[in-house]
Amino acid sequence: MTSSIEIQRVKSSKIASVDFDNLPFGSVYSDHMLTCDFVNGKWQEPKIVPFAPITLDPSAKIFHYGQSIFEGMKAYKDTDENVMLFRPLENCKRLNKSAERLVIPQIPEDIFMDGLKALLEVDSDWIPTNDGSSLYIRPFMFASGTGFHASPADAYKFIICSAPSGPYFAGKVKVLIEEKYARAANGGVGYAKAGGNYAAQFYPTQLAIDKGYNQVIWTDDNSHQFIEEAGAMNIFVRINDTLITSPTSDRILDGITRKSILQIAEDNGIDTEIRKISVGEVVEAAKDGSLKEMFGAGTAAVISPISGFGYNDNDFDLPELENPYAAQLKKLITDIQTNKSEDPYGWRVML
Amino acid sequence: MTSSIEIQRVKSSKIASVDFDNLPFGSVYSDHMLTCDFVNGKWQEPKIVPFAPITLDPSAKIFHYGQSIFEGMKAYKDTDENVMLFRPLENCKRLNKSAERLVIPQIPEDIFMDGLKALLEVDSDWIPTNDGSSLYIRPFMFASGTGFHASPADAYKFIICSAPSGPYFAGKVKVLIEEKYARAANGGVGYAKAGGNYAAQFYPTQLAIDKGYNQVIWTDDNSHQFIEEAGAMNIFVRINDTLITSPTSDRILDGITRKSILQIAEDNGIDTEIRKISVGEVVEAAKDGSLKEMFGAGTAAVISPISGFGYNDNDFDLPELENPYAAQLKKLITDIQTNKSEDPYGWRVML
Ligand SMILES: Cc1ncc(COP(=O)(O)O)c(C=O)c1O
Ligand SMILES: Cc1ncc(COP(=O)(O)O)c(C=O)c1O
Repeated sequence: MTSSIEIQRVKSSKIASVDFDNLPFGSVYSDHMLTCDFVNGKWQEPKIVPFAPITLDPSAKIFHYGQSIFEGMKAYKDTDENVMLFRPLENCKRLNKSAERLVIPQIPEDIFMDGLKALLEVDSDWIPTNDGSSLYIRPFMFASGTGFHASPADAYKFIICSAPSGPYFAGKVKVLIEEKYARAANGGVGYAKAGGNYAAQFYPTQLAIDKGYNQVIWTDDNSHQFIEEAGAMNIFVRINDTLITSPTSDRILDGITRKSILQIAEDNGIDTEIRKISVGEVVEAAKDGSLKEMFGAGTAAVISPISGFGYNDNDFDLPELENPYAAQLKKLITDIQTNKSEDPYGWRVML
Repeated sequence: MTSSIEIQRVKSSKIASVDFDNLPFGSVYSDHMLTCDFVNGKWQEPKIVPFAPITLDPSAKIFHYGQSIFEGMKAYKDTDENVMLFRPLENCKRLNKSAERLVIPQIPEDIFMDGLKALLEVDSDWIPTNDGSSLYIRPFMFASGTGFHASPADAYKFIICSAPSGPYFAGKVKVLIEEKYARAANGGVGYAKAGGNYAAQFYPTQLAIDKGYNQVIWTDDNSHQFIEEAGAMNIFVRINDTLITSPTSDRILDGITRKSILQIAEDNGIDTEIRKISVGEVVEAAKDGSLKEMFGAGTAAVISPISGFGYNDNDFDLPELENPYAAQLKKLITDIQTNKSEDPYGWRVML
């Protein structure tokens, strides 16, 4: 299957220097990466090479016009050393949706999927097995073509690299509901995993961190009255026993965790609603006690329970429940992801 | 003055290979560039080095999170070989405003200004003297620090490179007033020269080009009822004899050409208004003949007259006037820029 991809192996692996019991998130990198160039109007042969610096012209458009997109996925290994991915085709499809919006050539599904599998075979020793750890995989594409004219580049790089990682958040997550800044415009690129969407969040997030929060919950840029999503997670709100999440739109990322959680919740007897969630409603529910839970859902963050939120200079705490939906759903989804349970959906892809 | 900056000269200049009579825009690069690194919490010594590829880790945040900003300036040379810039401090200030919003460390004014001057001294032969040509200068800053955590990097690069350039637009500019897509959100980064703002425009611009237009005129993302700016130009509309431009906001770039033109127009007896411009008003004015001119204003585009616009599947042509404001103002501003007239404002900076 993967024999057609050329592999240049590292001379000596760095793996012995890695402390797998104390993994940070996304800052220790595996030995190899997959690279594939788009030049002369077509994708060239992908290759697996040692993880090593990239050389680019100073006029490459990535530096000037932010023409870049990415994905985030995880690989898991079970106790029998089986390696598995979770809904990887969804990431490939979303990458290509992002590509279309950013006028980046779409990556053929076979380069993505075969490349990913070949890379995981070469670096399978890098997949952690400790609870809560996994191999975070980062496929990305960017404009390597040059020029100061503000127009799409004529050359691109597709790269997949990976990082054995621990949890994204250390501890409880306290969020601030944003009233001034915004993440995405109507008719903009919010639904794409475009690089520029993330840098745009750093400043308001820093302001929130300075006030003692971990994350911003974005609201619509027009009225700031509706809860949309967080920096790298979709948001779920539980009012009484109903689990609610915003509909996706051109401002909101269509999260794979989000849609998986919706499915699992329904199949496990949890009422779900996909509808606009107003800030007023959440504040009222917090006040009258019907707001039971809030949590973020995303590949990096898995399911991250929110302990409280700030809004309009007030802080609201969430109750500590016995057996919250967040914990139930996290167990259900991670059991599927890590081969600890049946997978009635066919989401798990074994290598 | 510039003696403190280390200079590594090219072994042999590429200049003989350049056809200065047929310069493209921004795709032929001068021999040298200025580089300065931010590491360990501070800016290091700037250096002038040969224009050559940059080497970056695949996990550098520029590739993933679009943490990048830039500026665009021009250097001119008069018939006596004097070299000059136009309001360069404004670019430095705006770069730092962009830096603040993108959580990039601000560049000290002396590194920017002294570096720029030193670079222009070394590459002064690259400044074209032909009418309509100039040395386009591109200062930019981006995240070279690494990591997949969506947070600001801990290392950055500041680079200035340059490209002897001809006109940005070849021929007349026909624009499409956008009704669906948007460039910037309220509370977003539209006022910053952030890389991601430009890639976000490529797709709608491509759709407009496919329909026979050159550029999109952006409208507010909420109602699409107000004209904001174009891809790399602010927009002026002349109704009867009044020149109107939108106020700047957090969605609109505060263009240096725009504010210079407003000043020059006022001082030359042209009535100006800074106020919201509704699409309906422009369409009505086009129909009743009171819409006399539209033009874009920006460093790259200088003043680019608009020959017509599309809106809601209708095309509207603009009249061809004898002595349009666009031509008058273009002459006034370029004469100041190129030392062909007095500069009552102190905008010209001679090297
Ligand atoms: C903005 C944003 N929202 C939501 C998510 C969650 O998406 P997924 O569950 O596919 O990882 C992510 C990223 O992963 C994201 O970047
Ligand atoms: C979005 C945008 N608007 C307007 C302008 C014009 O600004 P300036 O006159 O300072 O060049 C530019 C760029 O140069 C721009 O990128």
